[in-house]
Amino acid sequence: MITRLRAAALGAVAIALVGNAATASDLKPEEQIQTRQAGYKFMSWNMGKITAHLEGDYNQAQVEAAANAIAGIANSGMGALYGPGTDEDIGDVKTRVKPELFTNQQEVGEVAMAFIEAANNMAETAALGDKAEVKTAFGELGESCKACHKKFRKD
Amino acid sequence: MITRLRAAALGAVAIALVGNAATASDLKPEEQIQTRQAGYKFMSWNMGKITAHLEGDYNQAQVEAAANAIAGIANSGMGALYGPGTDEDIGDVKTRVKPELFTNQQEVGEVAMAFIEAANNMAETAALGDKAEVKTAFGELGESCKACHKKFRKD
Repeated sequence: MITRLRAAALGAVAIALVGNAATASDLKPEEQIQTRQAGYKFMSWNMGKITAHLEGDYNQAQVEAAANAIAGIANSGMGALYGPGTDEDIGDVKTRVKPELFTNQQEVGEVAMAFIEAANNMAETAALGDKAEVKTAFGELGESCKACHKKFRKD
Repeated sequence: MITRLRAAALGAVAIALVGNAATASDLKPEEQIQTRQAGYKFMSWNMGKITAHLEGDYNQAQVEAAANAIAGIANSGMGALYGPGTDEDIGDVKTRVKPELFTNQQEVGEVAMAFIEAANNMAETAALGDKAEVKTAFGELGESCKACHKKFRKD
Protein backbone atom coordinates (compact mmCIF):
# COMPACT_ATOMS: atom_id res chain seq x y z
CA MET A 1 0.00 0.00 0.00
CA ILE A 2 2.90 2.30 0.75
CA THR A 3 4.14 2.69 -2.79
CA ARG A 4 0.61 2.77 -4.11
CA LEU A 5 -0.32 5.59 -1.77
CA ARG A 6 2.75 7.56 -2.78
CA ALA A 7 2.01 7.01 -6.42
CA ALA A 8 -1.62 7.90 -5.93
CA ALA A 9 -0.79 11.22 -4.32
CA LEU A 10 0.24 12.97 -7.50
CA GLY A 11 -2.71 11.63 -9.41
CA ALA A 12 -5.06 12.63 -6.63
CA VAL A 13 -3.73 16.15 -6.52
CA ALA A 14 -4.11 16.37 -10.27
CA ILE A 15 -7.73 15.35 -9.85
CA ALA A 16 -8.11 17.78 -6.98
CA LEU A 17 -6.87 20.64 -9.07
CA VAL A 18 -8.52 19.97 -12.36
CA GLY A 19 -11.70 18.49 -10.99
CA ASN A 20 -13.42 15.44 -12.37
CA ALA A 21 -15.68 16.14 -15.29
CA ALA A 22 -17.57 12.90 -14.88
CA THR A 23 -18.62 13.76 -11.36
CA ALA A 24 -18.67 17.50 -10.91
CA SER A 25 -21.35 17.64 -13.54
CA ASP A 26 -23.47 15.08 -11.72
CA LEU A 27 -23.82 16.95 -8.46
CA LYS A 28 -25.61 20.24 -8.01
CA PRO A 29 -23.57 22.95 -6.27
CA GLU A 30 -25.43 22.40 -2.97
CA GLU A 31 -24.78 18.67 -3.22
CA GLN A 32 -21.09 19.34 -3.83
CA ILE A 33 -20.96 21.43 -0.64
CA GLN A 34 -22.80 18.78 1.35
CA THR A 35 -20.61 15.99 -0.01
CA ARG A 36 -17.32 17.75 0.73
CA GLN A 37 -18.59 18.55 4.23
CA ALA A 38 -19.50 14.87 4.64
CA GLY A 39 -15.94 13.95 3.77
CA TYR A 40 -14.50 16.39 6.30
CA LYS A 41 -16.96 15.26 8.98
CA PHE A 42 -16.03 11.64 8.48
CA MET A 43 -12.33 12.43 8.53
CA SER A 44 -12.83 14.49 11.68
CA TRP A 45 -14.48 11.55 13.42
CA ASN A 46 -11.51 9.38 12.52
CA MET A 47 -9.07 12.05 13.68
CA GLY A 48 -10.88 12.07 17.01
CA LYS A 49 -10.61 8.31 17.31
CA ILE A 50 -6.87 8.44 16.70
CA THR A 51 -6.50 11.16 19.32
CA ALA A 52 -8.36 8.98 21.82
CA HIS A 53 -6.09 6.03 21.05
CA LEU A 54 -2.94 8.13 21.42
CA GLU A 55 -4.16 9.52 24.73
CA GLY A 56 -5.49 6.21 26.07
CA ASP A 57 -5.28 2.54 25.20
CA TYR A 58 -3.59 2.17 21.83
CA ASN A 59 -5.22 -0.29 19.46
CA GLN A 60 -3.20 -0.56 16.29
CA ALA A 61 -5.91 -2.14 14.15
CA GLN A 62 -8.36 0.62 14.97
CA VAL A 63 -5.80 3.40 14.45
CA GLU A 64 -4.80 1.84 11.15
CA ALA A 65 -8.44 1.59 10.06
CA ALA A 66 -9.05 5.23 10.99
CA ALA A 67 -5.91 6.35 9.16
CA ASN A 68 -6.92 4.38 6.06
CA ALA A 69 -10.35 6.00 6.08
CA ILE A 70 -8.75 9.44 6.21
CA ALA A 71 -6.25 8.59 3.47
CA GLY A 72 -8.99 7.10 1.30
CA ILE A 73 -11.07 10.24 1.56
CA ALA A 74 -8.06 12.54 1.14
CA ASN A 75 -7.10 10.79 -2.09
CA SER A 76 -10.60 10.71 -3.57
CA GLY A 77 -10.36 13.91 -5.60
CA MET A 78 -12.36 16.27 -3.39
CA GLY A 79 -11.34 19.16 -5.63
CA ALA A 80 -14.25 18.12 -7.84
CA LEU A 81 -16.54 19.22 -5.00
CA TYR A 82 -15.45 22.84 -5.31
CA GLY A 83 -17.16 23.52 -8.61
CA PRO A 84 -18.76 26.74 -9.84
CA GLY A 85 -21.42 28.10 -7.51
CA THR A 86 -20.06 26.36 -4.42
CA ASP A 87 -18.26 29.45 -3.14
CA GLU A 88 -21.15 30.70 -1.02
CA ASP A 89 -24.21 29.61 0.93
CA ILE A 90 -27.02 28.08 -1.10
CA GLY A 91 -30.24 28.39 0.88
CA ASP A 92 -29.87 26.31 4.03
CA VAL A 93 -26.63 24.80 2.77
CA LYS A 94 -23.93 26.87 4.39
CA THR A 95 -20.25 26.89 3.57
CA ARG A 96 -17.30 28.41 5.38
CA VAL A 97 -15.04 28.37 2.34
CA LYS A 98 -13.18 31.62 1.60
CA PRO A 99 -13.28 33.12 -1.92
CA GLU A 100 -9.49 32.76 -2.08
CA LEU A 101 -9.84 29.01 -2.56
CA PHE A 102 -11.34 29.63 -5.98
CA THR A 103 -8.78 32.18 -7.11
CA ASN A 104 -5.47 31.08 -5.63
CA GLN A 105 -4.95 27.80 -7.46
CA GLN A 106 -1.26 27.57 -6.73
CA GLU A 107 -1.62 27.86 -2.98
CA VAL A 108 -4.62 25.51 -3.00
CA GLY A 109 -2.48 22.98 -4.82
CA GLU A 110 0.27 23.31 -2.24
CA VAL A 111 -1.97 22.79 0.79
CA ALA A 112 -3.85 19.99 -0.97
CA MET A 113 -0.63 18.18 -1.80
CA ALA A 114 0.70 18.66 1.73
CA PHE A 115 -2.53 17.28 3.18
CA ILE A 116 -2.61 14.24 0.91
CA GLU A 117 1.04 13.48 1.61
CA ALA A 118 0.48 13.81 5.36
CA ALA A 119 -2.58 11.55 5.18
CA ASN A 120 -0.67 8.94 3.21
CA ASN A 121 2.29 9.14 5.57
CA MET A 122 -0.08 8.70 8.49
CA ALA A 123 -1.64 5.59 6.92
CA GLU A 124 1.78 4.13 6.19
CA THR A 125 3.04 4.88 9.70
CA ALA A 126 -0.09 3.52 11.37
CA ALA A 127 0.40 0.25 9.48
CA LEU A 128 3.87 -0.10 11.00
CA GLY A 129 2.45 0.26 14.50
CA ASP A 130 5.04 2.34 16.38
CA LYS A 131 2.96 4.59 18.65
CA ALA A 132 5.60 7.34 18.93
CA GLU A 133 5.99 7.52 15.18
CA VAL A 134 2.23 7.51 14.74
CA LYS A 135 2.00 10.42 17.14
CA THR A 136 4.48 12.39 15.03
CA ALA A 137 2.76 11.53 11.76
CA PHE A 138 -0.60 12.39 13.29
CA GLY A 139 0.70 15.75 14.46
CA GLU A 140 1.91 16.52 10.96
CA LEU A 141 -1.45 15.51 9.53
CA GLY A 142 -3.23 17.82 11.96
CA GLU A 143 -0.96 20.67 10.97
CA SER A 144 -1.74 20.10 7.30
CA CYS A 145 -5.47 20.31 8.11
CA LYS A 146 -4.97 23.53 10.06
CA ALA A 147 -2.85 25.09 7.29
CA CYS A 148 -5.75 24.80 4.88
CA HIS A 149 -8.35 25.93 7.42
CA LYS A 150 -6.27 28.98 8.22
CA LYS A 151 -5.96 30.01 4.59
CA PHE A 152 -9.22 28.92 3.07
CA ARG A 153 -11.86 28.50 5.80
CA LYS A 154 -13.72 31.23 7.61
CA ASP A 155 -13.72 31.01 11.40
CA MET B 1 -2.88 -3.78 0.31
CA ILE B 2 -4.74 -6.92 -0.69
CA THR B 3 -3.72 -9.06 2.25
CA ARG B 4 -4.02 -6.13 4.63
CA LEU B 5 -7.55 -5.45 3.50
CA ARG B 6 -8.48 -9.08 3.93
CA ALA B 7 -6.93 -9.16 7.38
CA ALA B 8 -8.59 -5.90 8.31
CA ALA B 9 -12.04 -7.16 7.42
CA LEU B 10 -12.44 -9.39 10.45
CA GLY B 11 -11.13 -6.75 12.78
CA ALA B 12 -13.36 -4.14 11.25
CA VAL B 13 -16.43 -6.30 11.65
CA ALA B 14 -15.46 -6.95 15.24
CA ILE B 15 -15.31 -3.20 15.75
CA ALA B 16 -18.57 -2.78 13.88
CA LEU B 17 -20.33 -5.24 16.12
CA VAL B 18 -18.93 -4.36 19.51
CA GLY B 19 -18.55 -0.66 18.88
CA ASN B 20 -15.58 1.41 19.88
CA ALA B 21 -15.66 2.56 23.46
CA ALA B 22 -13.11 5.28 22.87
CA THR B 23 -15.27 6.96 20.27
CA ALA B 24 -18.90 6.11 20.85
CA SER B 25 -18.64 7.89 24.16
CA ASP B 26 -17.22 11.01 22.52
CA LEU B 27 -20.09 11.65 20.14
CA LYS B 28 -23.61 12.55 21.16
CA PRO B 29 -26.32 10.39 19.59
CA GLU B 30 -27.23 13.10 17.08
CA GLU B 31 -23.56 13.43 16.13
CA GLN B 32 -23.33 9.68 15.65
CA ILE B 33 -26.30 9.82 13.25
CA GLN B 34 -24.80 12.75 11.35
CA THR B 35 -21.40 11.09 11.15
CA ARG B 36 -22.69 7.78 9.87
CA GLN B 37 -24.78 9.64 7.29
CA ALA B 38 -21.66 11.56 6.27
CA GLY B 39 -19.90 8.26 5.67
CA TYR B 40 -22.74 6.95 3.54
CA LYS B 41 -22.99 10.20 1.60
CA PHE B 42 -19.30 10.18 0.82
CA MET B 43 -19.40 6.53 -0.22
CA SER B 44 -22.42 7.27 -2.40
CA TRP B 45 -20.54 10.02 -4.20
CA ASN B 46 -17.72 7.62 -4.91
CA MET B 47 -20.14 4.92 -6.07
CA GLY B 48 -21.56 7.48 -8.50
CA LYS B 49 -18.11 8.29 -9.83
CA ILE B 50 -17.39 4.63 -10.45
CA THR B 51 -20.71 4.24 -12.27
CA ALA B 52 -19.80 7.19 -14.49
CA HIS B 53 -16.42 5.66 -15.29
CA LEU B 54 -17.95 2.27 -16.11
CA GLU B 55 -20.53 3.87 -18.38
CA GLY B 56 -18.11 6.33 -20.00
CA ASP B 57 -14.39 6.89 -20.22
CA TYR B 58 -12.66 4.55 -17.79
CA ASN B 59 -9.89 6.13 -15.74
CA GLN B 60 -8.24 3.50 -13.58
CA ALA B 61 -6.57 5.89 -11.14
CA GLN B 62 -9.83 7.64 -10.40
CA VAL B 63 -11.79 4.40 -10.05
CA GLU B 64 -9.09 3.02 -7.76
CA ALA B 65 -9.16 6.20 -5.65
CA ALA B 66 -12.94 6.04 -5.37
CA ALA B 67 -12.83 2.36 -4.44
CA ASN B 68 -10.17 3.02 -1.81
CA ALA B 69 -12.29 5.78 -0.28
CA ILE B 70 -15.25 3.41 -0.04
CA ALA B 71 -13.13 0.62 1.43
CA GLY B 72 -11.51 2.99 3.91
CA ILE B 73 -14.89 4.17 5.16
CA ALA B 74 -16.35 0.66 5.15
CA ASN B 75 -13.51 -0.61 7.33
CA SER B 76 -13.58 2.28 9.80
CA GLY B 77 -15.84 0.70 12.38
CA MET B 78 -19.11 2.47 11.63
CA GLY B 79 -20.88 0.19 14.09
CA ALA B 80 -19.71 2.62 16.77
CA LEU B 81 -22.05 5.18 15.20
CA TYR B 82 -25.13 3.12 16.06
CA GLY B 83 -24.98 3.70 19.78
CA PRO B 84 -27.85 4.00 22.26
CA GLY B 85 -30.33 6.72 21.35
CA THR B 86 -29.48 6.69 17.65
CA ASP B 87 -32.46 4.52 16.71
CA GLU B 88 -34.83 7.42 16.03
CA ASP B 89 -34.97 11.07 14.96
CA ILE B 90 -33.38 13.56 17.33
CA GLY B 91 -34.89 16.98 16.64
CA ASP B 92 -33.92 17.98 13.13
CA VAL B 93 -31.53 15.07 12.85
CA LYS B 94 -33.52 12.42 11.02
CA THR B 95 -32.60 8.78 10.57
CA ARG B 96 -34.09 6.10 8.36
CA VAL B 97 -32.68 3.23 10.39
CA LYS B 98 -35.12 0.46 11.30
CA PRO B 99 -35.40 -0.75 14.91
CA GLU B 100 -34.34 -4.21 13.75
CA LEU B 101 -30.76 -3.03 13.32
CA PHE B 102 -30.48 -2.68 17.08
CA THR B 103 -32.02 -6.03 17.94
CA ASN B 104 -30.90 -8.43 15.23
CA GLN B 105 -27.16 -8.50 15.87
CA GLN B 106 -26.54 -11.69 13.94
CA GLU B 107 -28.10 -10.47 10.74
CA VAL B 108 -26.43 -7.05 11.13
CA GLY B 109 -23.11 -8.84 11.43
CA GLU B 110 -23.79 -10.82 8.28
CA VAL B 111 -24.69 -7.83 6.12
CA ALA B 112 -21.84 -5.78 7.60
CA MET B 113 -19.32 -8.51 6.84
CA ALA B 114 -20.69 -8.97 3.33
CA PHE B 115 -20.45 -5.22 2.70
CA ILE B 116 -16.90 -4.93 4.01
CA GLU B 117 -15.77 -7.95 1.99
CA ALA B 118 -17.41 -6.54 -1.15
CA ALA B 119 -15.79 -3.14 -0.57
CA ASN B 120 -12.38 -4.73 -0.07
CA ASN B 121 -12.81 -6.93 -3.13
CA MET B 122 -13.77 -3.85 -5.13
CA ALA B 123 -10.65 -2.00 -3.99
CA GLU B 124 -8.45 -4.97 -4.82
CA THR B 125 -10.07 -5.44 -8.21
CA ALA B 126 -9.89 -1.73 -9.08
CA ALA B 127 -6.16 -1.81 -8.36
CA LEU B 128 -5.71 -4.55 -10.96
CA GLY B 129 -7.44 -2.43 -13.57
CA ASP B 130 -9.53 -4.89 -15.60
CA LYS B 131 -12.72 -2.98 -16.40
CA ALA B 132 -14.89 -6.08 -16.84
CA GLU B 133 -13.78 -7.46 -13.49
CA VAL B 134 -14.29 -4.08 -11.87
CA LYS B 135 -17.82 -4.02 -13.23
CA THR B 136 -18.53 -7.39 -11.63
CA ALA B 137 -16.98 -6.41 -8.30
CA PHE B 138 -18.85 -3.12 -8.37
CA GLY B 139 -22.14 -4.92 -9.01
CA GLU B 140 -21.50 -7.15 -6.01
CA LEU B 141 -20.67 -4.13 -3.88
CA GLY B 142 -23.91 -2.45 -4.90
CA GLU B 143 -25.85 -5.59 -4.02
CA SER B 144 -24.28 -5.65 -0.57
CA CYS B 145 -25.39 -2.04 -0.04
CA LYS B 146 -28.92 -2.86 -1.14
CA ALA B 147 -29.09 -5.95 1.07
CA CYS B 148 -28.54 -3.80 4.14
CA HIS B 149 -30.87 -1.04 2.96
CA LYS B 150 -33.63 -3.57 2.36
CA LYS B 151 -33.35 -5.06 5.81
CA PHE B 152 -32.39 -2.13 7.98
CA ARG B 153 -33.36 1.13 6.25
CA LYS B 154 -36.83 2.60 5.90
CA ASP B 155 -37.87 3.63 2.39
